[in-house]
Amino acid sequence: MDIQAINLADKLSTFDEYWSPRIIAQMNDYHFKLAKIRGEFIWHSHPETDEVFLVLKGDMRIEFRGFHTELSEGEMCVVPRGIEHKPVAQDVCQIMLIEPTGTLNTGDAGGERTKTDENWI
Amino acid sequence: MDIQAINLADKLSTFDEYWSPRIIAQMNDYHFKLAKIRGEFIWHSHPETDEVFLVLKGDMRIEFRGFHTELSEGEMCVVPRGIEHKPVAQDVCQIMLIEPTGTLNTGDAGGERTKTDENWI
Repeated sequence: MDIQAINLADKLSTFDEYWSPRIIAQMNDYHFKLAKIRGEFIWHSHPETDEVFLVLKGDMRIEFRGFHTELSEGEMCVVPRGIEHKPVAQDVCQIMLIEPTGTLNTGDAGGERTKTDENWI
Repeated sequence: MDIQAINLADKLSTFDEYWSPRIIAQMNDYHFKLAKIRGEFIWHSHPETDEVFLVLKGDMRIEFRGFHTELSEGEMCVVPRGIEHKPVAQDVCQIMLIEPTGTLNTGDAGGERTKTDENWI
């Protein structure tokens, strides 16, 4: 048996695509995902689950209806289930997402930016 | 309504006690905890859940029966449920733990190093 150390920077160096989360680990029925983001995503919510954003490098903003939350490196926030949000990053930002397996990036909004693959790296 | 950014370094600056995890966030029925560790912890396992260790600063080692995993800053690992492990850090190490609410630091081992308080910061 072997239990691997997962190096976040090494994993992040394996892809460049924006808004396309990669799965790096599973804990019970939760996935840990890495993503690179830049520009604006779409408004959506996850009616069935909270979602954690942790910024590993750069800065991002999560817009909510009527307010927003700024996140810099070493900062995280919990987006409560059912709350509409839109992630935005002016420049490239590297993040970790933690959410239940099967959670879609576009939540209840769907559309062309939805990533349905379970994309492990 | 307001959704706060949680700054990990700010939270870590609020305590010095070793092996005493503080809760900083809840996502569904999971807690995100910060801990400072130094020296050896005790052998234990969590029969009912996996557990994530993410190193924020410093270096640590997780000993398993017959092997071990070294973790440095920016590295994480998933300890599977039921697997005996002993966290060790030669010098001060700052970590984030992610596990279900109610998970005890000493798991099935119990004893005097058990922290039963839900210690939010």
